[in-house]
Amino acid sequence: MSSLDFAPLLAAGLPPAAGKWNGSATYSFVGGNNDPDHVPVDGLIAAMSAVLKREGTTLSTYGLASGPLGYRPLREFLAQKLKRAAGITCTADEILITSGSLQALDLVNGILLNRGDTIITEAETYQGSLNRWTRLGVNAIGIPLDRDGMRMDALAAALDDLKQRGVRAKYIYTIPTVQNPTGTILPETRRLDLLRLAEQHGVPIFEDDCYADLIWSGERPQAIHALSKHGGVIHIGSFSKSIAPALRVGYIVAEWSLLSRMLPIKTDAGSGALEQMVLGEYCPAHFGAHVPALTRGLRRKLETMMDALNEQFGTAAEFDDPKGGIFLWVKLPDVVDTMKLYQAGLAAGVAINPGPEWSTDKSYSRSRMRLCFANPSHEAIRAGVATLAEVCRREFGVPDRIANVQQRASA
Amino acid sequence: MSSLDFAPLLAAGLPPAAGKWNGSATYSFVGGNNDPDHVPVDGLIAAMSAVLKREGTTLSTYGLASGPLGYRPLREFLAQKLKRAAGITCTADEILITSGSLQALDLVNGILLNRGDTIITEAETYQGSLNRWTRLGVNAIGIPLDRDGMRMDALAAALDDLKQRGVRAKYIYTIPTVQNPTGTILPETRRLDLLRLAEQHGVPIFEDDCYADLIWSGERPQAIHALSKHGGVIHIGSFSKSIAPALRVGYIVAEWSLLSRMLPIKTDAGSGALEQMVLGEYCPAHFGAHVPALTRGLRRKLETMMDALNEQFGTAAEFDDPKGGIFLWVKLPDVVDTMKLYQAGLAAGVAINPGPEWSTDKSYSRSRMRLCFANPSHEAIRAGVATLAEVCRREFGVPDRIANVQQRASA
Repeated sequence: MSSLDFAPLLAAGLPPAAGKWNGSATYSFVGGNNDPDHVPVDGLIAAMSAVLKREGTTLSTYGLASGPLGYRPLREFLAQKLKRAAGITCTADEILITSGSLQALDLVNGILLNRGDTIITEAETYQGSLNRWTRLGVNAIGIPLDRDGMRMDALAAALDDLKQRGVRAKYIYTIPTVQNPTGTILPETRRLDLLRLAEQHGVPIFEDDCYADLIWSGERPQAIHALSKHGGVIHIGSFSKSIAPALRVGYIVAEWSLLSRMLPIKTDAGSGALEQMVLGEYCPAHFGAHVPALTRGLRRKLETMMDALNEQFGTAAEFDDPKGGIFLWVKLPDVVDTMKLYQAGLAAGVAINPGPEWSTDKSYSRSRMRLCFANPSHEAIRAGVATLAEVCRREFGVPDRIANVQQRASA
Repeated sequence: MSSLDFAPLLAAGLPPAAGKWNGSATYSFVGGNNDPDHVPVDGLIAAMSAVLKREGTTLSTYGLASGPLGYRPLREFLAQKLKRAAGITCTADEILITSGSLQALDLVNGILLNRGDTIITEAETYQGSLNRWTRLGVNAIGIPLDRDGMRMDALAAALDDLKQRGVRAKYIYTIPTVQNPTGTILPETRRLDLLRLAEQHGVPIFEDDCYADLIWSGERPQAIHALSKHGGVIHIGSFSKSIAPALRVGYIVAEWSLLSRMLPIKTDAGSGALEQMVLGEYCPAHFGAHVPALTRGLRRKLETMMDALNEQFGTAAEFDDPKGGIFLWVKLPDVVDTMKLYQAGLAAGVAINPGPEWSTDKSYSRSRMRLCFANPSHEAIRAGVATLAEVCRREFGVPDRIANVQQRASA
């Protein structure tokens, strides 16, 4: 007896089927995976035991004893931490805990975006955001960045152009503090310019601060949300990069009039309780010491990666020192097509994020790639970069072998 | 300086704004909250410590070391448990762990439903499913139930009617094992009828077994998924009712050809890791002893509720003894409008689920209500039912005061 064929029953417009999962590449420089050595396992165990002993029976209730905004002690921690670290003034009831910042993106988009709307973004940005705008049928206007982040002259021009066309952008999306993928930080003067331009054109700002805890210097500018004198800013963040990504805990900071519109479309009966409880217990006492230790470890991995790139690629790899975070944004010679390099690399066991998947400007990003240095060991970083250089040479003729031989000869 | 007004920027078609959360009603008989006395707190603490000590560093990677289907040990537990308890034969790779069964509903709907499609459901069913079909613009044809669940004569007639109209339903949604809200169990003969009718008409079956672990007799029929000889069945379940709802862990059992279409629309970078890890650690050793103990406790609460209803409402409250679970489905006299009773009850501190929110047939369900007995204490059940009776009498003149005076006089 044959099986029911589901094919004619499938919904219209589905993305292609997933392939089976084969594990990570041997040398995996993709995604936002974090440093396993810095997951605070013992601290999380202790925190989990304590909070479950005290409050474990509340697991019997959807929303625990805290309601749909999420576990109250975690929101209270965040309100204090955001004030201290970023200057944001908000109450615990102006924070919504989400299932990762991905859900934060979905909720903000869910209340603001219709098909055919226009948004403005840094031209190089988070792939997850780009994919969402594409799926939602939203036009994403990309603003070029320089070493200080989004260029305000280009933003002003884009806003003027939209005004002339009678189009009001739904928001300006920015990752201003350790930008993904470029690692830049938008200085305060530009933040004030951004606010002025946004207010002038009546466009909200959607501030994504997911990477903002990981700054080498520890000096974090005031959040755009904090600097605004006229509201108009929705701020999101995450614990994925400061604690661990598999936890899936993010948050939205916004006025109640917006959160009250998000809650009815957050139809999940609450985000996972254990993660919220353990972070609510762990963070007040430990977040402040944990993050600098993590950041120092990440900096060391970045240095290993930059050394490896210099050694293996020579002048063929150009990059600026990111101000923090877990990513390095690299420019290879124009002859390199990083989409093809990605495929060839995969076959050789090294995974990279090709630039065009991280930019609205496919030709600008054609020879660029994003590398995550947080997860692989120092040895794996070195071996992976060496493998990548070999693949790149084979496919594109760069880097030049002579430089490497010279390097090895003089080592 | 005034704030940016977001009102003109909001997306079209949003549900109304949420009100602020005021906590639960004093006597809360709503939702699927569970018995706090039976949350296995010590077991969860021990399991969490053990699994984090062993595998905590994997939190640094999206998807842990298991990939997008979810934490492998949990899937392996489920494959064994589903075989043992429900007769389902599947591998761990035919199981997708979801953020609660709500996400399972969303993923199945996401791959099968277009706006304007038709599905078939038990007429009384889970409100979360009803709301989803409404929001998706899907026609839900409700099939009446009797004491043995969905009526097969009515299903056959509905399928024939659709065939005549040239409409192919996308699935038959059933909660066959401890039905929500009626508490019935579809016997095996009807399951075979259902399969025969579904196959005859080329309609998949969507089997929701979220409450199936909680059967008083412990005797659970083979799942429809297990009985099928032609595939065509998608099976979902949850740990919300067997362990705790705040954990947000559900699962889908389906062939890879379907899971491979769901994964690309599960755009959350994974469901919460800690819940999956703790259940994967706790359940193999403890699930089998935990559930019967929980079930005995729930049965005692049901008896308290039935006694309280008999005492307070007399013959005005009609109900069948559910076969298990956490809900009681009650019929009040035809003069009672339970939507209004709900509002009046709320003002008096008692929350009920009014029937029309749990049925496709608003007139059939007009005087019915669903009561959850799992969460409130025995005392709260008695006091809450007494308060409800008082409110009902005040609003609708039933139950008759004489019966209660007689009851109290003879107590």
